[in-house]
Amino acid sequence: MAALARSVLVTGSNRGIGLELVRQLAASPRPPQHIFATCRDPEGPRGKWMLCDLLELSSTLLFALADAVNLPSIRGAVRAVGSHLKDQGLNLLINNAGVSSHATLRSLDSREMLSAFATNVVGALVSLLQEFLPLLEKAAKGVGKEGLSCSRAAVINISTKLGSIGLCLKVPEAPMYPYRASKAAQNMVTRCMAAELQDKGILCVAIHPGWVKTDMGTEKAPLMVEHSVQGILTVLANLSQDTSGAFLDWEGNTLPW
Amino acid sequence: MAALARSVLVTGSNRGIGLELVRQLAASPRPPQHIFATCRDPEGPRGKWMLCDLLELSSTLLFALADAVNLPSIRGAVRAVGSHLKDQGLNLLINNAGVSSHATLRSLDSREMLSAFATNVVGALVSLLQEFLPLLEKAAKGVGKEGLSCSRAAVINISTKLGSIGLCLKVPEAPMYPYRASKAAQNMVTRCMAAELQDKGILCVAIHPGWVKTDMGTEKAPLMVEHSVQGILTVLANLSQDTSGAFLDWEGNTLPW
Repeated sequence: MAALARSVLVTGSNRGIGLELVRQLAASPRPPQHIFATCRDPEGPRGKWMLCDLLELSSTLLFALADAVNLPSIRGAVRAVGSHLKDQGLNLLINNAGVSSHATLRSLDSREMLSAFATNVVGALVSLLQEFLPLLEKAAKGVGKEGLSCSRAAVINISTKLGSIGLCLKVPEAPMYPYRASKAAQNMVTRCMAAELQDKGILCVAIHPGWVKTDMGTEKAPLMVEHSVQGILTVLANLSQDTSGAFLDWEGNTLPW
Repeated sequence: MAALARSVLVTGSNRGIGLELVRQLAASPRPPQHIFATCRDPEGPRGKWMLCDLLELSSTLLFALADAVNLPSIRGAVRAVGSHLKDQGLNLLINNAGVSSHATLRSLDSREMLSAFATNVVGALVSLLQEFLPLLEKAAKGVGKEGLSCSRAAVINISTKLGSIGLCLKVPEAPMYPYRASKAAQNMVTRCMAAELQDKGILCVAIHPGWVKTDMGTEKAPLMVEHSVQGILTVLANLSQDTSGAFLDWEGNTLPW
Protein backbone atom coordinates (compact mmCIF):
# COMPACT_ATOMS: atom_id res chain seq x y z
CA MET A 1 0.00 0.00 0.00
CA ALA A 2 1.29 3.44 -0.90
CA ALA A 3 1.83 6.07 1.76
CA LEU A 4 -1.28 8.11 2.55
CA ALA A 5 0.61 11.23 1.51
CA ARG A 6 4.20 12.28 1.00
CA SER A 7 3.91 15.03 3.62
CA VAL A 8 1.41 15.47 6.41
CA LEU A 9 0.91 18.18 9.02
CA VAL A 10 -1.22 17.57 12.13
CA THR A 11 -2.21 20.43 14.44
CA GLY A 12 -2.91 19.94 18.14
CA SER A 13 -0.62 16.92 18.09
CA ASN A 14 0.58 16.92 21.69
CA ARG A 15 -2.29 14.79 22.94
CA GLY A 16 -5.46 12.87 22.18
CA ILE A 17 -6.42 12.32 18.56
CA GLY A 18 -3.63 14.54 17.18
CA LEU A 19 -0.92 12.63 19.00
CA GLU A 20 -2.35 9.27 17.94
CA LEU A 21 -2.59 10.43 14.31
CA VAL A 22 1.11 11.31 14.33
CA ARG A 23 2.01 8.07 16.08
CA GLN A 24 0.10 5.84 13.65
CA LEU A 25 1.32 7.76 10.61
CA ALA A 26 4.94 7.44 11.79
CA ALA A 27 4.54 3.75 12.66
CA SER A 28 2.80 2.72 9.43
CA PRO A 29 4.58 0.30 7.03
CA ARG A 30 4.84 3.09 4.43
CA PRO A 31 5.07 6.26 6.50
CA PRO A 32 4.86 9.71 4.96
CA GLN A 33 8.27 11.11 4.05
CA HIS A 34 7.57 14.19 6.17
CA ILE A 35 5.38 14.40 9.23
CA PHE A 36 4.93 17.79 10.83
CA ALA A 37 3.46 17.79 14.30
CA THR A 38 2.38 21.16 15.62
CA CYS A 39 0.98 22.20 18.96
CA ARG A 40 0.55 25.33 21.02
CA ASP A 41 3.38 24.64 23.40
CA PRO A 42 5.97 22.11 22.19
CA GLU A 43 8.34 23.14 24.98
CA GLY A 44 5.76 22.37 27.66
CA PRO A 45 5.83 19.10 29.61
CA ARG A 46 3.43 17.30 27.29
CA GLY A 47 5.20 18.58 24.18
CA LYS A 48 8.57 17.38 25.38
CA TRP A 49 7.26 13.98 26.33
CA MET A 50 5.69 13.64 22.91
CA LEU A 51 8.92 14.67 21.23
CA CYS A 52 11.00 11.96 22.94
CA ASP A 53 8.35 9.35 22.44
CA LEU A 54 7.75 9.98 18.78
CA LEU A 55 11.30 10.67 17.63
CA GLU A 56 12.02 6.99 18.19
CA LEU A 57 9.44 6.23 15.53
CA SER A 58 10.50 8.61 12.84
CA SER A 59 13.66 10.51 12.22
CA THR A 60 11.96 12.88 9.80
CA LEU A 61 9.39 14.13 12.24
CA LEU A 62 9.44 17.91 12.60
CA PHE A 63 7.88 19.77 15.48
CA ALA A 64 6.67 23.29 15.22
CA LEU A 65 4.89 25.79 17.35
CA ALA A 66 1.49 26.69 15.93
CA ASP A 67 -0.81 28.44 18.31
CA ALA A 68 -4.02 28.62 16.33
CA VAL A 69 -5.01 32.01 17.68
CA ASN A 70 -1.59 33.55 17.12
CA LEU A 71 -0.89 34.53 13.53
CA PRO A 72 2.90 35.07 13.89
CA SER A 73 3.17 31.58 15.37
CA ILE A 74 1.26 30.07 12.43
CA ARG A 75 3.50 31.99 10.01
CA GLY A 76 6.56 30.68 11.82
CA ALA A 77 5.32 27.13 11.35
CA VAL A 78 4.68 27.75 7.64
CA ARG A 79 8.26 29.00 7.19
CA ALA A 80 9.69 26.00 9.07
CA VAL A 81 7.60 23.52 7.08
CA GLY A 82 8.30 25.27 3.77
CA SER A 83 12.04 25.30 4.29
CA HIS A 84 11.99 21.64 5.31
CA LEU A 85 10.01 20.65 2.21
CA LYS A 86 12.31 22.72 -0.03
CA ASP A 87 10.64 22.89 -3.46
CA GLN A 88 7.83 20.48 -2.65
CA GLY A 89 4.40 21.36 -1.37
CA LEU A 90 2.46 20.07 1.61
CA ASN A 91 0.05 17.28 0.67
CA LEU A 92 -2.10 16.82 3.71
CA LEU A 93 -3.15 19.32 6.38
CA ILE A 94 -5.09 17.83 9.30
CA ASN A 95 -6.75 20.56 11.37
CA ASN A 96 -7.20 18.81 14.65
CA ALA A 97 -6.52 21.65 17.12
CA GLY A 98 -9.56 22.99 18.89
CA VAL A 99 -11.22 23.61 22.21
CA SER A 100 -14.35 22.25 23.80
CA SER A 101 -16.72 24.52 25.69
CA HIS A 102 -19.73 23.71 27.84
CA ALA A 103 -22.61 26.04 28.61
CA THR A 104 -26.37 25.96 28.88
CA LEU A 105 -28.50 28.70 27.42
CA ARG A 106 -28.69 30.26 30.89
CA SER A 107 -25.02 29.98 31.82
CA LEU A 108 -23.78 30.99 28.39
CA ASP A 109 -21.29 33.83 28.46
CA SER A 110 -20.61 36.05 25.44
CA ARG A 111 -16.86 35.83 25.87
CA GLU A 112 -16.98 32.04 25.98
CA MET A 113 -18.97 31.92 22.74
CA LEU A 114 -16.54 34.28 21.04
CA SER A 115 -13.50 32.47 22.35
CA ALA A 116 -14.68 29.06 21.07
CA PHE A 117 -15.38 30.63 17.67
CA ALA A 118 -12.03 32.45 17.61
CA THR A 119 -10.11 29.24 18.26
CA ASN A 120 -12.13 26.58 16.43
CA VAL A 121 -13.14 28.56 13.35
CA VAL A 122 -11.01 31.66 12.88
CA GLY A 123 -7.60 30.51 14.13
CA ALA A 124 -7.47 26.75 13.82
CA LEU A 125 -9.23 26.70 10.49
CA VAL A 126 -9.35 29.91 8.48
CA SER A 127 -6.04 31.56 9.46
CA LEU A 128 -4.18 28.26 9.35
CA LEU A 129 -5.49 27.37 5.91
CA GLN A 130 -4.88 30.87 4.56
CA GLU A 131 -1.22 30.62 5.57
CA PHE A 132 -0.66 27.03 4.42
CA LEU A 133 -2.60 27.45 1.17
CA PRO A 134 0.46 28.26 -0.99
CA LEU A 135 2.14 25.02 0.15
CA LEU A 136 -1.03 23.02 -0.54
CA GLU A 137 -1.40 24.62 -3.98
CA LYS A 138 2.19 23.74 -4.76
CA ALA A 139 1.53 20.10 -3.81
CA ALA A 140 -1.66 20.02 -5.91
CA LYS A 141 0.35 21.08 -8.98
CA GLY A 142 2.73 18.13 -8.55
CA VAL A 143 3.59 16.10 -11.65
CA GLY A 144 1.13 13.33 -12.54
CA LYS A 145 -1.49 14.45 -10.05
CA GLU A 146 -5.11 14.31 -11.14
CA GLY A 147 -8.45 14.14 -9.34
CA LEU A 148 -8.70 14.82 -5.64
CA SER A 149 -7.00 12.74 -2.93
CA CYS A 150 -5.01 13.01 0.29
CA SER A 151 -1.89 11.98 -1.62
CA ARG A 152 -2.30 15.02 -3.88
CA ALA A 153 -3.52 17.85 -1.64
CA ALA A 154 -6.15 17.83 1.09
CA VAL A 155 -7.46 19.68 4.12
CA ILE A 156 -9.05 17.47 6.77
CA ASN A 157 -10.99 19.30 9.45
CA ILE A 158 -11.60 17.29 12.60
CA SER A 159 -15.21 18.08 13.43
CA THR A 160 -17.76 16.40 15.70
CA LYS A 161 -21.19 14.83 15.58
CA LEU A 162 -22.15 17.50 18.15
CA GLY A 163 -21.64 19.99 15.32
CA SER A 164 -24.39 18.32 13.28
CA ILE A 165 -27.41 20.65 13.30
CA GLY A 166 -29.59 17.90 11.84
CA LEU A 167 -28.77 15.44 14.60
CA CYS A 168 -28.64 18.05 17.37
CA LEU A 169 -28.02 15.27 19.88
CA LYS A 170 -29.33 15.39 23.41
CA VAL A 171 -29.06 19.09 24.11
CA PRO A 172 -30.02 18.92 27.79
CA GLU A 173 -27.46 16.15 28.44
CA ALA A 174 -24.73 17.88 26.45
CA PRO A 175 -25.34 21.60 26.86
CA MET A 176 -22.46 22.79 24.76
CA TYR A 177 -23.73 25.82 22.89
CA PRO A 178 -20.32 27.41 22.23
CA TYR A 179 -18.74 24.15 21.03
CA ARG A 180 -21.73 23.13 18.91
CA ALA A 181 -22.12 26.58 17.31
CA SER A 182 -18.41 26.85 16.52
CA LYS A 183 -18.36 23.36 15.01
CA ALA A 184 -21.44 24.05 12.85
CA ALA A 185 -19.66 27.19 11.63
CA GLN A 186 -16.52 25.11 11.01
CA ASN A 187 -18.55 22.64 8.94
CA MET A 188 -19.86 25.52 6.85
CA VAL A 189 -16.32 26.77 6.27
CA THR A 190 -15.20 23.24 5.30
CA ARG A 191 -17.97 23.04 2.74
CA CYS A 192 -17.22 26.50 1.30
CA MET A 193 -13.52 25.65 1.12
CA ALA A 194 -14.30 22.38 -0.66
CA ALA A 195 -16.32 24.26 -3.28
CA GLU A 196 -13.70 26.99 -3.68
CA LEU A 197 -10.58 24.79 -3.73
CA GLN A 198 -11.84 21.94 -5.89
CA ASP A 199 -10.62 23.59 -9.10
CA LYS A 200 -7.18 23.99 -7.56
CA GLY A 201 -7.00 20.23 -6.94
CA ILE A 202 -7.42 20.47 -3.16
CA LEU A 203 -9.84 18.17 -1.35
CA CYS A 204 -11.62 19.30 1.85
CA VAL A 205 -13.51 17.06 4.24
CA ALA A 206 -14.94 17.25 7.78
CA ILE A 207 -14.39 14.16 9.94
CA HIS A 208 -16.18 13.16 13.14
CA PRO A 209 -13.65 11.03 15.07
CA GLY A 210 -16.28 9.42 17.28
CA TRP A 211 -16.63 10.02 20.99
CA VAL A 212 -13.11 9.14 22.04
CA LYS A 213 -11.43 8.55 25.39
CA THR A 214 -9.19 11.63 25.45
CA ASP A 215 -8.78 14.62 27.75
CA MET A 216 -11.53 16.33 25.75
CA GLY A 217 -13.77 13.26 25.32
CA THR A 218 -13.28 12.17 28.97
CA GLU A 219 -13.05 8.63 30.31
CA LYS A 220 -16.80 8.13 29.78
CA ALA A 221 -16.29 7.96 26.01
CA PRO A 222 -16.86 4.52 24.48
CA LEU A 223 -14.16 4.62 21.79
CA MET A 224 -10.40 4.05 22.20
CA VAL A 225 -8.30 6.68 20.46
CA GLU A 226 -6.28 3.98 18.64
CA HIS A 227 -9.47 2.58 17.11
CA SER A 228 -10.78 6.01 16.11
CA VAL A 229 -7.52 6.97 14.43
CA GLN A 230 -7.22 3.65 12.57
CA GLY A 231 -10.67 4.36 11.17
CA ILE A 232 -9.86 7.97 10.27
CA LEU A 233 -6.69 6.97 8.38
CA THR A 234 -8.60 4.30 6.42
CA VAL A 235 -11.28 6.88 5.54
CA LEU A 236 -8.63 9.40 4.45
CA ALA A 237 -6.96 6.85 2.16
CA ASN A 238 -10.25 6.39 0.30
CA LEU A 239 -11.27 10.03 -0.16
CA SER A 240 -11.78 11.25 -3.72
CA GLN A 241 -13.52 13.87 -5.83
CA ASP A 242 -16.84 12.25 -4.86
CA THR A 243 -16.36 12.81 -1.15
CA SER A 244 -14.85 16.30 -1.17
CA GLY A 245 -17.07 18.58 0.87
CA ALA A 246 -18.52 15.66 2.84
CA PHE A 247 -19.05 15.22 6.59
CA LEU A 248 -17.94 11.67 7.44
CA ASP A 249 -17.41 9.76 10.64
CA TRP A 250 -14.35 7.63 11.45
CA GLU A 251 -16.04 4.64 9.83
CA GLY A 252 -16.77 6.51 6.60
CA ASN A 253 -20.50 7.03 7.21
CA THR A 254 -21.99 10.30 5.99
CA LEU A 255 -23.42 12.52 8.72
CA PRO A 256 -26.19 15.10 8.25
CA TRP A 257 -25.08 18.72 8.47
CA MET B 1 -58.65 35.15 11.89
CA ALA B 2 -57.13 35.60 15.35
CA ALA B 3 -54.12 37.83 15.87
CA LEU B 4 -50.80 36.08 15.27
CA ALA B 5 -49.84 36.87 18.85
CA ARG B 6 -50.93 39.24 21.58
CA SER B 7 -47.47 40.83 21.80
CA VAL B 8 -44.64 40.81 19.26
CA LEU B 9 -41.12 42.23 19.35
CA VAL B 10 -39.12 42.70 16.15
CA THR B 11 -35.40 43.53 16.25
CA GLY B 12 -33.64 45.46 13.49
CA SER B 13 -36.95 47.08 12.63
CA ASN B 14 -35.76 50.38 11.17
CA ARG B 15 -35.44 49.01 7.64
CA GLY B 16 -35.80 46.10 5.27
CA ILE B 17 -37.54 42.99 6.49
CA GLY B 18 -37.80 44.18 10.09
CA LEU B 19 -39.57 47.39 9.11
CA GLU B 20 -41.95 45.54 6.79
CA LEU B 21 -42.75 42.99 9.50
CA VAL B 22 -43.75 45.79 11.87
CA ARG B 23 -45.73 47.55 9.16
CA GLN B 24 -47.72 44.47 8.12
CA LEU B 25 -48.32 43.41 11.73
CA ALA B 26 -49.61 46.87 12.61
CA ALA B 27 -51.77 47.08 9.46
CA SER B 28 -53.32 43.62 9.75
CA PRO B 29 -57.08 43.30 10.35
CA ARG B 30 -56.39 41.82 13.81
CA PRO B 31 -53.14 43.43 14.86
CA PRO B 32 -51.21 42.31 17.95
CA GLN B 33 -52.15 44.28 21.04
CA HIS B 34 -48.50 45.23 21.57
CA ILE B 35 -45.87 45.63 18.90
CA PHE B 36 -42.35 46.43 20.02
CA ALA B 37 -40.01 47.65 17.33
CA THR B 38 -36.35 47.77 18.30
CA CYS B 39 -33.33 48.97 16.43
CA ARG B 40 -29.78 50.06 17.13
CA ASP B 41 -30.39 53.75 16.69
CA PRO B 42 -34.03 54.84 16.93
CA GLU B 43 -32.94 58.49 17.21
CA GLY B 44 -31.02 58.32 13.93
CA PRO B 45 -32.54 59.62 10.69
CA ARG B 46 -33.94 56.25 9.63
CA GLY B 47 -35.31 55.51 13.07
CA LYS B 48 -37.13 58.84 13.24
CA TRP B 49 -38.61 58.44 9.80
CA MET B 50 -39.82 54.99 10.72
CA LEU B 51 -41.33 56.29 13.93
CA CYS B 52 -43.47 58.92 12.20
CA ASP B 53 -44.48 56.55 9.46
CA LEU B 54 -45.52 53.70 11.69
CA LEU B 55 -47.16 55.61 14.50
CA GLU B 56 -49.96 56.46 12.09
CA LEU B 57 -50.67 52.75 11.83
CA SER B 58 -50.70 51.80 15.46
CA SER B 59 -51.00 53.79 18.61
CA THR B 60 -49.69 50.93 20.74
CA LEU B 61 -46.39 50.64 18.94
CA LEU B 62 -43.43 51.00 21.28
CA PHE B 63 -39.94 51.78 20.12
CA ALA B 64 -36.89 50.77 22.03
CA LEU B 65 -33.17 50.89 21.61
CA ALA B 66 -31.65 47.43 21.36
CA ASP B 67 -28.14 47.34 20.07
CA ALA B 68 -27.52 43.61 19.75
CA VAL B 69 -23.89 43.82 20.76
CA ASN B 70 -24.55 46.03 23.76
CA LEU B 71 -25.90 44.20 26.79
CA PRO B 72 -27.03 47.28 28.78
CA SER B 73 -29.03 48.40 25.76
CA ILE B 74 -30.73 44.99 25.51
CA ARG B 75 -31.50 45.09 29.23
CA GLY B 76 -32.98 48.56 28.84
CA ALA B 77 -35.30 47.24 26.12
CA VAL B 78 -36.35 44.31 28.33
CA ARG B 79 -37.25 46.72 31.15
CA ALA B 80 -39.23 48.97 28.79
CA VAL B 81 -41.10 46.05 27.27
CA GLY B 82 -41.71 44.39 30.65
CA SER B 83 -43.14 47.53 32.19
CA HIS B 84 -45.36 48.11 29.14
CA LEU B 85 -46.70 44.55 29.28
CA LYS B 86 -47.27 44.82 33.04
CA ASP B 87 -48.07 41.31 34.29
CA GLN B 88 -48.23 39.69 30.88
CA GLY B 89 -45.39 37.99 29.07
CA LEU B 90 -44.02 38.50 25.57
CA ASN B 91 -45.47 36.01 23.07
CA LEU B 92 -43.37 36.43 20.00
CA LEU B 93 -39.73 37.47 19.63
CA ILE B 94 -38.54 37.93 16.04
CA ASN B 95 -34.75 38.12 15.88
CA ASN B 96 -34.26 39.92 12.64
CA ALA B 97 -31.24 42.13 13.46
CA GLY B 98 -28.00 41.07 11.85
CA VAL B 99 -25.17 42.04 9.57
CA SER B 100 -23.98 40.73 6.25
CA SER B 101 -20.30 40.28 5.53
CA HIS B 102 -18.50 39.46 2.30
CA ALA B 103 -15.07 37.86 2.02
CA THR B 104 -13.31 35.22 -0.01
CA LEU B 105 -10.99 32.72 1.59
CA ARG B 106 -8.05 34.90 0.59
CA SER B 107 -9.48 38.25 1.66
CA LEU B 108 -10.94 36.91 4.88
CA ASP B 109 -9.93 38.88 7.93
CA SER B 110 -10.05 37.44 11.46
CA ARG B 111 -11.70 40.52 12.89
CA GLU B 112 -14.42 40.42 10.23
CA MET B 113 -15.18 36.77 11.03
CA LEU B 114 -15.35 37.52 14.75
CA SER B 115 -17.45 40.62 14.27
CA ALA B 116 -20.08 38.81 12.17
CA PHE B 117 -20.24 36.07 14.79
CA ALA B 118 -20.43 38.55 17.67
CA THR B 119 -23.37 40.36 16.09
CA ASN B 120 -25.34 37.59 14.39
CA VAL B 121 -24.91 34.83 16.96
CA VAL B 122 -23.79 36.17 20.31
CA GLY B 123 -25.58 39.51 20.51
CA ALA B 124 -28.61 39.34 18.25
CA LEU B 125 -29.47 35.80 19.23
CA VAL B 126 -27.99 34.44 22.47
CA SER B 127 -27.77 37.59 24.62
CA LEU B 128 -31.13 38.84 23.39
CA LEU B 129 -32.87 35.56 24.12
CA GLN B 130 -31.21 35.20 27.51
CA GLU B 131 -32.55 38.59 28.53
CA PHE B 132 -36.05 38.17 27.09
CA LEU B 133 -36.44 34.57 28.26
CA PRO B 134 -38.28 35.43 31.51
CA LEU B 135 -40.90 37.38 29.54
CA LEU B 136 -41.30 34.52 27.06
CA GLU B 137 -41.60 31.99 29.87
CA LYS B 138 -44.26 34.14 31.48
CA ALA B 139 -46.22 34.19 28.20
CA ALA B 140 -45.86 30.42 27.80
CA LYS B 141 -47.48 29.89 31.20
CA GLY B 142 -50.54 31.90 30.16
CA VAL B 143 -53.97 30.47 30.96
CA GLY B 144 -55.35 27.95 28.46
CA LYS B 145 -52.11 27.69 26.52
CA GLU B 146 -51.09 24.25 25.27
CA GLY B 147 -48.85 22.96 22.52
CA LEU B 148 -46.42 25.25 20.74
CA SER B 149 -47.44 28.26 18.67
CA CYS B 150 -46.57 31.90 17.98
CA SER B 151 -49.69 32.93 19.90
CA ARG B 152 -48.32 31.18 23.02
CA ALA B 153 -44.55 31.82 23.02
CA ALA B 154 -42.06 31.68 20.19
CA VAL B 155 -38.60 32.75 19.06
CA ILE B 156 -38.26 33.28 15.31
CA ASN B 157 -34.70 33.65 14.06
CA ILE B 158 -34.39 35.24 10.65
CA SER B 159 -31.77 33.13 8.95
CA THR B 160 -30.75 32.69 5.30
CA LYS B 161 -30.43 30.03 2.66
CA LEU B 162 -26.76 31.07 2.51
CA GLY B 163 -26.49 29.61 6.01
CA SER B 164 -27.49 26.17 4.72
CA ILE B 165 -24.38 23.98 4.80
CA GLY B 166 -26.14 21.33 2.74
CA LEU B 167 -27.02 23.71 -0.08
CA CYS B 168 -23.78 25.72 0.14
CA LEU B 169 -24.91 27.78 -2.80
CA LYS B 170 -22.52 29.16 -5.37
CA VAL B 171 -19.54 29.92 -3.17
CA PRO B 172 -17.43 31.64 -5.84
CA GLU B 173 -20.34 33.91 -6.85
CA ALA B 174 -21.25 34.68 -3.21
CA PRO B 175 -17.99 34.57 -1.26
CA MET B 176 -19.45 35.34 2.12
CA TYR B 177 -17.53 33.21 4.58
CA PRO B 178 -18.20 35.35 7.67
CA TYR B 179 -21.93 35.67 6.95
CA ARG B 180 -22.36 32.00 6.02
CA ALA B 181 -20.39 30.72 9.02
CA SER B 182 -22.24 32.97 11.47
CA LYS B 183 -25.61 31.93 10.03
CA ALA B 184 -24.76 28.20 10.21
CA ALA B 185 -23.81 28.77 13.87
CA GLN B 186 -27.09 30.68 14.34
CA ASN B 187 -29.03 27.74 12.90
CA MET B 188 -27.30 25.41 15.36
CA VAL B 189 -28.25 27.70 18.23
CA THR B 190 -31.87 27.82 16.99
CA ARG B 191 -32.01 24.06 16.96
CA CYS B 192 -30.47 23.72 20.44
CA MET B 193 -32.88 26.35 21.78
CA ALA B 194 -35.83 24.51 20.24
CA ALA B 195 -34.78 21.30 22.00
CA GLU B 196 -34.12 23.05 25.29
CA LEU B 197 -37.20 25.31 25.38
CA GLN B 198 -39.81 22.87 24.10
CA ASP B 199 -40.70 21.69 27.61
CA LYS B 200 -41.21 25.29 28.66
CA GLY B 201 -43.79 25.75 25.92
CA ILE B 202 -41.58 27.96 23.73
CA LEU B 203 -41.33 27.32 20.01
CA CYS B 204 -38.11 28.14 18.06
CA VAL B 205 -37.76 28.25 14.29
CA ALA B 206 -35.25 29.55 11.73
CA ILE B 207 -36.76 31.33 8.72
CA HIS B 208 -35.14 32.12 5.36
CA PRO B 209 -36.93 35.23 4.10
CA GLY B 210 -35.86 34.71 0.49
CA TRP B 211 -33.44 36.93 -1.39
CA VAL B 212 -35.19 40.23 -0.85
CA LYS B 213 -34.77 43.71 -2.34
CA THR B 214 -33.45 45.48 0.76
CA ASP B 215 -30.28 47.39 1.65
CA MET B 216 -28.74 44.04 2.58
CA GLY B 217 -30.21 42.01 -0.30
CA THR B 218 -29.47 44.78 -2.86
CA GLU B 219 -31.57 45.77 -5.85
CA LYS B 220 -30.51 42.61 -7.71
CA ALA B 221 -32.70 40.48 -5.45
CA PRO B 222 -35.76 38.97 -7.14
CA LEU B 223 -38.23 39.20 -4.25
CA MET B 224 -40.14 42.25 -3.03
CA VAL B 225 -39.97 42.73 0.73
CA GLU B 226 -43.79 42.96 0.95
CA HIS B 227 -44.13 39.54 -0.66
CA SER B 228 -41.47 37.96 1.55
CA VAL B 229 -43.05 39.31 4.75
CA GLN B 230 -46.56 38.23 3.72
CA GLY B 231 -45.16 34.74 3.31
CA ILE B 232 -43.28 34.82 6.62
CA LEU B 233 -46.37 35.91 8.56
CA THR B 234 -48.44 33.12 6.97
CA VAL B 235 -45.75 30.59 7.88
CA LEU B 236 -45.60 31.89 11.46
CA ALA B 237 -49.38 31.56 11.88
CA ASN B 238 -49.12 27.87 11.03
CA LEU B 239 -46.17 26.87 13.22
CA SER B 240 -46.78 24.15 15.79
CA GLN B 241 -45.05 21.50 17.88
CA ASP B 242 -44.28 19.62 14.64
CA THR B 243 -42.28 22.45 13.14
CA SER B 244 -40.36 23.65 16.21
CA GLY B 245 -36.64 23.39 15.49
CA ALA B 246 -37.21 23.56 11.73
CA PHE B 247 -35.49 25.66 9.05
CA LEU B 248 -38.22 26.97 6.75
CA ASP B 249 -38.35 29.46 3.92
CA TRP B 250 -40.91 32.24 3.55
CA GLU B 251 -43.16 29.84 1.64
CA GLY B 252 -43.01 27.19 4.36
CA ASN B 253 -40.65 24.82 2.55
CA THR B 254 -38.13 22.97 4.70
CA LEU B 255 -34.48 23.75 3.92
CA PRO B 256 -31.54 21.42 4.57
CA TRP B 257 -29.22 22.48 7.37
